[in-house]
Amino acid sequence: MAPPGRTARRRGAERKPREKRWSELVKVATQVFYEKGYEAASLQDIADRLGMLKGSLYYYIQTKEDLLYEVINGVHQGGLRNLKTLMSKDAGALERLREVVIGHVEYECENLVSTTVFLHELDALPPERRQEIVGEDHAYRGLLTELIEDGQAEGVIKEDVSPKLAALWILGSANWLYRWYVPGGEFTAREIGEQFADWVVRALAA
Amino acid sequence: MAPPGRTARRRGAERKPREKRWSELVKVATQVFYEKGYEAASLQDIADRLGMLKGSLYYYIQTKEDLLYEVINGVHQGGLRNLKTLMSKDAGALERLREVVIGHVEYECENLVSTTVFLHELDALPPERRQEIVGEDHAYRGLLTELIEDGQAEGVIKEDVSPKLAALWILGSANWLYRWYVPGGEFTAREIGEQFADWVVRALAA
Repeated sequence: MAPPGRTARRRGAERKPREKRWSELVKVATQVFYEKGYEAASLQDIADRLGMLKGSLYYYIQTKEDLLYEVINGVHQGGLRNLKTLMSKDAGALERLREVVIGHVEYECENLVSTTVFLHELDALPPERRQEIVGEDHAYRGLLTELIEDGQAEGVIKEDVSPKLAALWILGSANWLYRWYVPGGEFTAREIGEQFADWVVRALAA
Repeated sequence: MAPPGRTARRRGAERKPREKRWSELVKVATQVFYEKGYEAASLQDIADRLGMLKGSLYYYIQTKEDLLYEVINGVHQGGLRNLKTLMSKDAGALERLREVVIGHVEYECENLVSTTVFLHELDALPPERRQEIVGEDHAYRGLLTELIEDGQAEGVIKEDVSPKLAALWILGSANWLYRWYVPGGEFTAREIGEQFADWVVRALAA
């Protein structure tokens, strides 16, 4: 057995290129799943794009599904951190709702390729891995539901609004962006976000 | 050559079972595409489900894509007829907008399986067949845009609303239903439709 110090140094020396390779792999997998769809994409496609042998991929993953899990988990976690930051601002519920809608639309537009893979291919994961990522109650929906309840407690959101249905309504129009948003097109992400936020606040405000 | 009368009679006799078989084929294809996803589904799966030989399918279609085209075209045409009927009612623009949102949500929930194939698999069709179905300017979006413009002309919808962006916003939350609506679940199609319609009208009304 090598002395602990030496093992540690060796691991340290290996870590960087391996991590770099891994993040390249996830990035390329995202792009390939986006272009071909998860079902049609093969590990061979991904290896070819990376200039690697297909066999070398098994150093990082066991199956194509492992890669889909990584892609979806990554963009979902990023979106969740973004939502939590926006929600925890020191402001009233309506102001926070506005910020959340704008920020969520912007996050989605800025991460269009990975968001598309997330939203379009989530159901390709088996239920237990899907649940591991989004949780029992769908993390985004849960956060928005909470925010709308906060607004009702403050008296600034209408009493007769179902927080869960309103959360699904807001997320639906934001999620659907991945099907029509064109970077550099007719509307900027900011314009879309601000317009959606205005309409949502107007619809739900007491 | 057989006399015209006889040919006509023969055709008449054949037509019914062939049309019946064809509509069964489209129905089964819809279900198989829904369950397995278009890419993963095979003509063999569809033939097995129908108790037919795969070769017999070629009497009706040339490729799996022909079946996807039929499924998507059918549900899209139905949805369009529905929207046009709702839009042409003799009422003001806001009232018609309300009816359109409710009726569109209900149509989607009542045709959940075929709507799912339409919304999830549209991009699996080549651009020219996609365009043949939804048209240059996406038929649903075009109709909603028109209705919002009518409302602006009547002075009942805010001037600063972009009709196209509002149409995309409304359709997004309705389309997303296919990902979360559960028949017999927490909300009925009617409840969802009425709630969405209230929010949309409140958001856009002058």
